[in-house]
Amino acid sequence: MKQPIGVIDSGVGGLTVVHELMRQLPKEPLIYLGDTARCPYGPRTEEEVKQFTWEMVRFLLGKNIKMLVIACNTATAFTIKDLQKELDIPVIGVIKPGARAAIKSTENNYIGVIGTEGTVRSGAYSYALRKIKSDIEVISLACPSFVPMVEKGVLDGPEAKQVVENALAPILEHDKMDTLILGCTHYPLLKDTIQEVVGKKIIVISSSEETARETSTTLDIHQIANHDDHMPPHQFYATGDLDIFIEITEKIFKDSNFEVLTIKHADLQNI
Amino acid sequence: MKQPIGVIDSGVGGLTVVHELMRQLPKEPLIYLGDTARCPYGPRTEEEVKQFTWEMVRFLLGKNIKMLVIACNTATAFTIKDLQKELDIPVIGVIKPGARAAIKSTENNYIGVIGTEGTVRSGAYSYALRKIKSDIEVISLACPSFVPMVEKGVLDGPEAKQVVENALAPILEHDKMDTLILGCTHYPLLKDTIQEVVGKKIIVISSSEETARETSTTLDIHQIANHDDHMPPHQFYATGDLDIFIEITEKIFKDSNFEVLTIKHADLQNI
Repeated sequence: MKQPIGVIDSGVGGLTVVHELMRQLPKEPLIYLGDTARCPYGPRTEEEVKQFTWEMVRFLLGKNIKMLVIACNTATAFTIKDLQKELDIPVIGVIKPGARAAIKSTENNYIGVIGTEGTVRSGAYSYALRKIKSDIEVISLACPSFVPMVEKGVLDGPEAKQVVENALAPILEHDKMDTLILGCTHYPLLKDTIQEVVGKKIIVISSSEETARETSTTLDIHQIANHDDHMPPHQFYATGDLDIFIEITEKIFKDSNFEVLTIKHADLQNI
Repeated sequence: MKQPIGVIDSGVGGLTVVHELMRQLPKEPLIYLGDTARCPYGPRTEEEVKQFTWEMVRFLLGKNIKMLVIACNTATAFTIKDLQKELDIPVIGVIKPGARAAIKSTENNYIGVIGTEGTVRSGAYSYALRKIKSDIEVISLACPSFVPMVEKGVLDGPEAKQVVENALAPILEHDKMDTLILGCTHYPLLKDTIQEVVGKKIIVISSSEETARETSTTLDIHQIANHDDHMPPHQFYATGDLDIFIEITEKIFKDSNFEVLTIKHADLQNI
């Protein structure tokens, strides 16, 4: 099936999911839509997040997508149940894939979760983890300094290491934690720095990598994967300033060898 | 949904998948059926494997299972398509989960696969890997000495290390390989020894762990997971000698803290 997979995010964080989808599923055409004009979703009300997400979904449904990936933790927490109920295509979010990977990885059931304040406050990871395995101990920490740093393009080096060290200090006091979920789609861009700070003994789970993996499983179960090497090019859309979006996209995909991308402005008010 | 998940294998290897299912999905009741009387399936004809597998499946359908896991590479290779087509419950095998995990893990697309002669000859892993990602280079090796050693209970120590070293020598010449799939459900019992022999730089993928992970995803997509902590006990059945089966089961689950198991003889001729 050569129809594209739709990927939505509040901004640019979901591009780490796109990066992994391209790496793990190179035969799948993608359409990405980042609501950069109204980013971040974290501080917004549930009603706003729902409304904005539905606007994005309607835009992508108009592009004939075969599956939807909600590549944003906040949008996943607030909308996934409704979307799975209302849409007649498969819908997955970023929370359960990370939770399942952490359950597979942990040997002592102590799992750390870092994310935005909104995600940590929602308790979505604790809920997803304990629904599957009741005796999981969850150690959560909000890292509000990470997203602004990533948006500035600071991903490694002494400044990034210092910020990550300071932010993670409280969670590292829990010496039993053996697995750490990066519960924000921006954080995989800091994965090397985070792994360096937490040490090799702690397994760091990228929800972006795991979401791509579960997209593969989902396509397979629904028998809608594309197995043909020839496919339409990927398409990227953003609701806000295209110059900044292109700059960040180039940074994320600088080492990638993917087909030339279409990057366009999306007007969600006139669908 | 408190109905059990059915797990079938030609013998005892599939118990490593059961072990992982219990660890990753502790709220799911399981029914295991090992065709120990007719093990191994490796050297048998396709017709025989199909007939035996269908006999096992009919036995488990009589136990009202909600999902089927084919925890045997040979049976997966020969029967999964038919079973997915004919049964109205979800069916997964052990090959695709391992393939997807390896695609996630590899950084240079050189993936090793070790398994029985039958599995390696079938090319099932190469097919599954390249169907998703065409430029994967697969290095396959049959390790016929591993299953008899595991069945004898030799899982570590100098003897195991020597056998593993000798067997893996040809595949270790491929210095580009960065990921190795254990393409036989017996091999996870040798995982520590195999990891020691191949070194820390190579990521070793247990198809048992990955199959349990994808069982979790599958239950979720079909909305048939059990979220209640109170569940019926697991049931184990074997077609052959129960004494040996119980001995091996006790060895595999010696460190586990699971509910007392029902272990019974299964007569597949009189269903």
